[in-house]
Amino acid sequence: MAPAFEDETASETNFSDVEQLHKSKVTVVGSGNWGSVAAKLIASNTLKLSSFHDEVRMWVYEEILPSGEKLSEVINQNNENVKYLPGIKLGKNVVADPDLEHAVKDATMLVFVTPHQFMEGICKRLVGKIRGDAEAISLIKGMEVKMEGPCMISTLITDLLGINCCVLMGANIANEIAVEKFSEATVGYRENRDIAERWVRLFSTPYFMVSAVQDVEGVELCGTLKNVVAIAAGFVDGLEMGNNTKAAIMRIGLREMKAFSKLLFSSVRDSTFFESCGIADLITTCLGGRNRKVAEAFARNGGKRSFDELEAEMLQGQKLQGVSTAREVYEVLSHRGWLELFPLFTAVHEISTGRLPPSAIVEYSEHTPRLNVLEGSAQYC
Amino acid sequence: MAPAFEDETASETNFSDVEQLHKSKVTVVGSGNWGSVAAKLIASNTLKLSSFHDEVRMWVYEEILPSGEKLSEVINQNNENVKYLPGIKLGKNVVADPDLEHAVKDATMLVFVTPHQFMEGICKRLVGKIRGDAEAISLIKGMEVKMEGPCMISTLITDLLGINCCVLMGANIANEIAVEKFSEATVGYRENRDIAERWVRLFSTPYFMVSAVQDVEGVELCGTLKNVVAIAAGFVDGLEMGNNTKAAIMRIGLREMKAFSKLLFSSVRDSTFFESCGIADLITTCLGGRNRKVAEAFARNGGKRSFDELEAEMLQGQKLQGVSTAREVYEVLSHRGWLELFPLFTAVHEISTGRLPPSAIVEYSEHTPRLNVLEGSAQYC
Repeated sequence: MAPAFEDETASETNFSDVEQLHKSKVTVVGSGNWGSVAAKLIASNTLKLSSFHDEVRMWVYEEILPSGEKLSEVINQNNENVKYLPGIKLGKNVVADPDLEHAVKDATMLVFVTPHQFMEGICKRLVGKIRGDAEAISLIKGMEVKMEGPCMISTLITDLLGINCCVLMGANIANEIAVEKFSEATVGYRENRDIAERWVRLFSTPYFMVSAVQDVEGVELCGTLKNVVAIAAGFVDGLEMGNNTKAAIMRIGLREMKAFSKLLFSSVRDSTFFESCGIADLITTCLGGRNRKVAEAFARNGGKRSFDELEAEMLQGQKLQGVSTAREVYEVLSHRGWLELFPLFTAVHEISTGRLPPSAIVEYSEHTPRLNVLEGSAQYC
Repeated sequence: MAPAFEDETASETNFSDVEQLHKSKVTVVGSGNWGSVAAKLIASNTLKLSSFHDEVRMWVYEEILPSGEKLSEVINQNNENVKYLPGIKLGKNVVADPDLEHAVKDATMLVFVTPHQFMEGICKRLVGKIRGDAEAISLIKGMEVKMEGPCMISTLITDLLGINCCVLMGANIANEIAVEKFSEATVGYRENRDIAERWVRLFSTPYFMVSAVQDVEGVELCGTLKNVVAIAAGFVDGLEMGNNTKAAIMRIGLREMKAFSKLLFSSVRDSTFFESCGIADLITTCLGGRNRKVAEAFARNGGKRSFDELEAEMLQGQKLQGVSTAREVYEVLSHRGWLELFPLFTAVHEISTGRLPPSAIVEYSEHTPRLNVLEGSAQYC
């Protein structure tokens, strides 16, 4: 390609080159179920929108398939991730790339969508290997909540790579979006509205409606804390308490999610919890989802079979995030003297460790302090 | 009873008389399923709390049972509403009274819980028959939304009877609360926090947690508008679109409930929609409930069988509020030029009248104006 700006009387071809230079190049870092769906969504838009390069590069953690073929090669031959999203065409402009450094080197927009435990390692490998003007977005749910505060994936990316990072969360069951069932998502951004709008354009389709809110922490915390509420909802299901009680528990859960997030980050906005990342993702997770399912089995067994045992039996090696997040949240609450302010979060942990019976999920004493004492009290943080 | 204050050196008995005079006397106007459960909740508290008379009077619209006995007499003999809440003891201090005027004449706290279409007639009968210092609360969901604005039941009571009226709404399936499954409710009050707290004390039990918010209109509108969203959720179920889409539709529905209420009443608060009357009641109604159920059947039949026909077949004479509320809301939106701002409410009406196919419930154009243009725009009202 001719270098841009070499001649002030640039030809049309050169104009086009300049345009090319200013187009955003997208790389998706991750190619699991959700990563593949994200690549599909994005690839349908980069073809249509002139501000993006058509090609979407997707980093694939290489695997050898039972056929002996390499996963990345099969994806490129068939435009299909036969292992993690079989039956769905990703778009011919999705290019699988097993070389992480190569996949990211020209990207101006990096979409991170890997299991959260791999992110620290991936970021460390990427130091010095990405463009300085790159923008990032994290689709990764389930950061850890450490005693000193949550370890946000978006913060990890910014800290290790020195780039701005938005997040995208919402009620997003990958397989339903893959078949183009209507859904929504929320982009959380920090300051730059223009960048947020670029992400919104990159992801939005008529069946996937994306909105942006200036609240990275609120959006990202929703994606993690909802799993604790899903455990509570599963207990209610296991105890066969009916929709009324389940709705009450989900509401109290959302309220605690909001209060907890606001205590940790005074910038978190109430309105974020009305977005897809808040109420909608909570509903999806409490209706379906593995956290709810295993918690239901736990309650049906009267708490006599441990979560570890049920997980091993029901999830084929996958682990429940809700139980570990509940433990992490409990440690924060305990450390800060907030246990009484969060009766639901507290009960989830105490039930899952066997200290309380599953029925304790609805045993709110009349004397339990109401969470509305927390309303607007971010100054506690 | 000796008249109070007759003697300044009052005996202990007279002190007790004075106390009695200042105790609140509660009458429940209505004795259907929810009315009977309300009487049970209240009666358990009046026995415990010294600021209330033990006795709870319950007006019963007299009916002759198949046995030939009068309903009110059977209730008083058995402490059980054998017709509308069989199998549940109401408490011995609940007194069924078939004489409306007699039932209300000494009451200082009037709990209205009748079908909404009877309220105007009841209020007209009560003019001049109640105490001037009486306080009212309405548990009645489903007021009408007229072109000039919603016809709130609480306003009807205040206008016709000249008394203050709070509301109590929430995720309240009567039969689940009757068997003391955990639930919540929201009291909406206008100005007087003390009165609201008296209502909260009257209804709260360890399994029925009540909070108060200063937002009568917001709380009352939730109880009506949720039925429109439940119709939308039913369409999604009938189309088998999965939890993800359903959660998105419920979220968009809540957002339109909020925006519509705020456009009509600038006093409505966002936070009300996080209460039991908002999100929790919406969840319950969209998971179970007859609006959802009939709408599901409507969508399964591709809209080829009308709501009238399905109602007749499925509901044994009961009518769906959601469909008529959707029509009323549509008229307001159309009259005020707001149709485009409320794509979900609009679609529900257009689908239920056969103008659009059920699948239109998720066909949001990319060009649909987003409701966030409404955020904080109560000045449109």
